[in-house]
Amino acid sequence: MNNFEFKNPTKIIFGKDTIAKLAKEIPTDAKVLVLYGGGSIKKNGIYEQVQSALKDIDYVEFGGIPANPEYTVLLEALQVIKNENISYLLAVGGGSVIDGTKFLSAAALFEGDTPWDILSNRKPTLKGMPFGTVLTLPATGSEMNSGAVITRAETKEKLGMGGAGLFPQFSILDPQVIKSIPKRQLVNGITDAFTHVLEQYMTYPAGALLQDRFAESIMQTLIEVAPKILKDPTDYEAASNFMWSCTMALNGLIQKGVPTDWAVHAMGHELTALYGIDHARTLAIIAPSHYQYNFDTKKEKLAQYAERIWNITEGSLEDKAYDAIERTEQFFNQMGIDTKLSKYTENFDGTAEVISKRFTERGWVGLGEHQSLKPEDVEHIVQMAY
Amino acid sequence: MNNFEFKNPTKIIFGKDTIAKLAKEIPTDAKVLVLYGGGSIKKNGIYEQVQSALKDIDYVEFGGIPANPEYTVLLEALQVIKNENISYLLAVGGGSVIDGTKFLSAAALFEGDTPWDILSNRKPTLKGMPFGTVLTLPATGSEMNSGAVITRAETKEKLGMGGAGLFPQFSILDPQVIKSIPKRQLVNGITDAFTHVLEQYMTYPAGALLQDRFAESIMQTLIEVAPKILKDPTDYEAASNFMWSCTMALNGLIQKGVPTDWAVHAMGHELTALYGIDHARTLAIIAPSHYQYNFDTKKEKLAQYAERIWNITEGSLEDKAYDAIERTEQFFNQMGIDTKLSKYTENFDGTAEVISKRFTERGWVGLGEHQSLKPEDVEHIVQMAY
Repeated sequence: MNNFEFKNPTKIIFGKDTIAKLAKEIPTDAKVLVLYGGGSIKKNGIYEQVQSALKDIDYVEFGGIPANPEYTVLLEALQVIKNENISYLLAVGGGSVIDGTKFLSAAALFEGDTPWDILSNRKPTLKGMPFGTVLTLPATGSEMNSGAVITRAETKEKLGMGGAGLFPQFSILDPQVIKSIPKRQLVNGITDAFTHVLEQYMTYPAGALLQDRFAESIMQTLIEVAPKILKDPTDYEAASNFMWSCTMALNGLIQKGVPTDWAVHAMGHELTALYGIDHARTLAIIAPSHYQYNFDTKKEKLAQYAERIWNITEGSLEDKAYDAIERTEQFFNQMGIDTKLSKYTENFDGTAEVISKRFTERGWVGLGEHQSLKPEDVEHIVQMAY
Repeated sequence: MNNFEFKNPTKIIFGKDTIAKLAKEIPTDAKVLVLYGGGSIKKNGIYEQVQSALKDIDYVEFGGIPANPEYTVLLEALQVIKNENISYLLAVGGGSVIDGTKFLSAAALFEGDTPWDILSNRKPTLKGMPFGTVLTLPATGSEMNSGAVITRAETKEKLGMGGAGLFPQFSILDPQVIKSIPKRQLVNGITDAFTHVLEQYMTYPAGALLQDRFAESIMQTLIEVAPKILKDPTDYEAASNFMWSCTMALNGLIQKGVPTDWAVHAMGHELTALYGIDHARTLAIIAPSHYQYNFDTKKEKLAQYAERIWNITEGSLEDKAYDAIERTEQFFNQMGIDTKLSKYTENFDGTAEVISKRFTERGWVGLGEHQSLKPEDVEHIVQMAY
């Protein structure tokens, strides 16, 4: 097991009818900016629940944060924060709204030249404006971590940011929100969370027996509940386990003491930036090719995953490892997720070269758990995913 | 899954040679009281590591906190805190030293008549004097939770306390400390952590699929590493997984959203208070009888545990459940832990009646996940454990 540090101070309020507990978590003298996305919360009753909970709180609203939170839209919200003397942020939404809120939390207190520096400098944010979240879409785990990914359409960039100052003070997780989520987004959420676990697990054995089992527990649970949720999103048992699994998949715990990969995300982000493909689907496109390309360095963990997750007990270590990649792809496919880039865009020619060139230009030191993947490896992997 | 709230702000610093990181976590203007136990830290090198880390910090020491931290000893330490204007506490030890430090953290800021009220009132402590810990004995999980158990020899009482104000600010976990722990205490630690998981798991199915798997992950890991640690406590992989499993067994995570029992602890505490039996061993004495006595209300989870932990796949649900109790007892026995009270004291006659009477006198509403166990049930269970 590798040395690690772990601290996650976010307060989770989980369960039925918990949105009403909102006001107790916000300082009474706060001036709050409530942030949300495309307005679905106004159709599914969540908006009314938030309004009712905030009835004694001074707040203004900013809606319209798009999926893959867009920098220019966030700059408008930043202006509202300054004009209205906002002191507390409340994200009501999924990963995009929460990620956008994290950027605003950092930007509100940022003292540099331009808020874009927060993203381009890659320096951790140690202090942000305090914020809480009401999660409406389980997927990214952003509700209990300190990271965010922001998109800038102008330059087709999608960059990460974060730091110890960007944990939500609280997050309210009511699994009842799941019943009004479109199936496409449910499938994305399951795929996203599952791939988050893979990124922190599918590396090489590091003697972290407990972390491996925790990671496997999340994957087993997602596989168990996925068909139930897709069949009946009002199934509360399935919904609550799905929601808590998504949070636990990326709240820092399972990555502690182990090597992590994240190359699938790095490549996937580029596919979203270039073609607007849903984040989760970009991960499903890249992951199988990535594991095939890096088979030799990952085969021990692939085989362990084969045995413990897919009950594959026959054959050599390599056989099991290959089977496990195939089963993963089938899992995505069975939920209706295509795992080839060509199914999403006709103009995929040259994608691998473009992404590889971008990585070269950014001067990255190497992707993957060994930081050994070079732009030319990325080119191969993306090509395999065509 | 039941509704729950979860917040655990303790910073964990885990791994080889991490004690040197101590000073960075303590405010430079703090006046620190370093608390420790019987002095084993002066023999195994931990004391020197702490001294060296604190070389630029203003501190005084208080040693001699006994196992089952004794109220009257802690009152002496409280006097030192007041006389020396202490502003920060540092526990260097196992669960007893850390629990004692939590009591002092609360008592240092307590405004009632007598510090004993902290224990007798059973009110949560919302603010304590800040403290950190250096864990020298994995077992209780006290290094990452806000609870403590304090003993008062005078009245043969052992009572719990805690509250959101009593999380350690940081805890340093260096698995290398394990190599100098006597085998008896290693065995106690494994048993203690294992029983902690059982108390939060062996109830009835509540649809918390992920929490069940996390609990099972900890038990599987403890079973896997136990023989390795007992054979070779310098086995770092085994030691690190043992240490992290003990912490995760009682940091609040696996109890969220599920019913919990804790009757084994309630009865076990009395055996320690009456006969001075090691805490962990009292749990191993009570647990098998408790599960037999409450077989009907626990058999579904016992059978799940049988299948997933002990690979018992043959027989009826009841058969598996019974086998699982037997395997648990064997697990303790194989580590050298006796599971009958009569192996610890010759004067066990009447113990069940004494404990039952104490519970009646305290006016307890009922033990167990259904709060349904009455003093007469306790009497039966303790008798079965003779």
